Amino acid sequence: MTNRTAAPVTVIGLGLMGRALATAFLKAGHPTTVWNRSSSRATELVAEGARSAPSVGAALEASPLTVLCVTDYRAVRELFDASEAELAGTTLLNLTSGDSTQARETARWAEQHGARYLDGAIMAVPPVVGTADATILLSGPHSDFGTHRTTVEALGTVTHLGEDHGLAALYDVAGLAMMWSVLNAWLQGTAMLRTAGVDAATYAQFARRMAVGVADWLPGYAEQIDRGSFPAEVAALETDARAMAHLIEESEALGVNAELPKLFKAMADRAIAAGHGGEQYPVLIEEFSKP
Amino acid sequence: MTNRTAAPVTVIGLGLMGRALATAFLKAGHPTTVWNRSSSRATELVAEGARSAPSVGAALEASPLTVLCVTDYRAVRELFDASEAELAGTTLLNLTSGDSTQARETARWAEQHGARYLDGAIMAVPPVVGTADATILLSGPHSDFGTHRTTVEALGTVTHLGEDHGLAALYDVAGLAMMWSVLNAWLQGTAMLRTAGVDAATYAQFARRMAVGVADWLPGYAEQIDRGSFPAEVAALETDARAMAHLIEESEALGVNAELPKLFKAMADRAIAAGHGGEQYPVLIEEFSKP
Repeated sequence: MTNRTAAPVTVIGLGLMGRALATAFLKAGHPTTVWNRSSSRATELVAEGARSAPSVGAALEASPLTVLCVTDYRAVRELFDASEAELAGTTLLNLTSGDSTQARETARWAEQHGARYLDGAIMAVPPVVGTADATILLSGPHSDFGTHRTTVEALGTVTHLGEDHGLAALYDVAGLAMMWSVLNAWLQGTAMLRTAGVDAATYAQFARRMAVGVADWLPGYAEQIDRGSFPAEVAALETDARAMAHLIEESEALGVNAELPKLFKAMADRAIAAGHGGEQYPVLIEEFSKP
Repeated sequence: MTNRTAAPVTVIGLGLMGRALATAFLKAGHPTTVWNRSSSRATELVAEGARSAPSVGAALEASPLTVLCVTDYRAVRELFDASEAELAGTTLLNLTSGDSTQARETARWAEQHGARYLDGAIMAVPPVVGTADATILLSGPHSDFGTHRTTVEALGTVTHLGEDHGLAALYDVAGLAMMWSVLNAWLQGTAMLRTAGVDAATYAQFARRMAVGVADWLPGYAEQIDRGSFPAEVAALETDARAMAHLIEESEALGVNAELPKLFKAMADRAIAAGHGGEQYPVLIEEFSKP
């Protein structure tokens, strides 16, 4: 399965996601070395063509790029502290889940040990890894991204977000916030429409079109935020707040949950109380930017 | 501007939206009669070719279809109670904002007065009315929709949702819930990314792609709700809840608002406590369907 042009790569951490990463590299023809604390996890991958390294140090030495996918950032540090593996000269790509502070701290730690470091997030479930539907977010030095880009592209659609190592973690959770928001709004509407005998499949088509339509406004609305000026070109926030009151009343009258509508209105009401009722919705960035 | 094939239509209520409706009918060539409590509102429309009716009764008589766009549903009833206008034989299309209960009650009241009745909602701001970007939701008898469809299509893209008169009001607020959810999730992410110096325009492109991507899952997820079965084909709810905890922690660490993430997690936690942690996200429909 390996080919002469594909760069060697190492995967450390063979949970469900780590094994999916290793499999994707193998399928793309990369000579793939794997290591896991419990080596039994490597058995299937070795059958697929991977090489199981006898130690963390040997795993690092096997490839110019080592992908880390372990439980959390503490596990990353413990792994290297325990092994005393030589980090100098290697490049780590850390796909372990964590926050932006941990990513930046780990980047500093790697630098102190002479390693190059990229941080990343996988916006996909394991079965999707290795297909274009898997979004891989990376952050860290452009030059390191450039060096290893082709290798990482074996995992999915790769986006380099910038040099700040914290960006991948930030985009990851922000993207999840969008995911849960779209799903929750759809569930709110589904719960309402089901009281009128409309099935979920019927309402889903309408909800999908609404979400796509509103998504298309975001770049334009973003200009208001970047300018810091929110003229009510389309509608004023106080008009939104009145419609939010209708949503709350309708939800309560139907006997469905009204917590989400109430939170919408509470935030809008605070912005109105702060004098922004005549401005446009994106002025709420001020409320979202406060603890 | 009128043409021989376009049916006459009457518009009652000439606020900002009512005037936009009348203008759209005139532009499409419909002989248009207007009435407003304060007749001065009709002046500009008369200059554009509308006929100003001297009374509500005369306004109804002028056209087979009368579109109502007044302050609220109480104003609709007061209008006809005060005028003692003959409703028998006419068709009312009520585009006044209201809830599903009001729509159904008004449909019964119209029936008692011998009028045919359609209820509707305009998902657009006045300047967009009369273009394909204005979504007009209608509910009520199929036959009445069929009779007046061509006339209503002068206002925008028309969708007939079903015979239940309450549907337009329900889809309207459910659609707005989606709108606010997408906007709020984008604002949450924008607030987070701005702490790392990412401008709103840059993040908006990512947020847009996320919203569109998730919107495309809805029809598939809806099948789980309609079947009442939520196997974790993609991810289990408890995995989402762990990532929600990361979102809360990250928001708090950055000093941005965490109310929305906390509400997401509170609802997920209740479903997990009810034994659904191993099922997929749409199982939350049970929480959304409770007061």
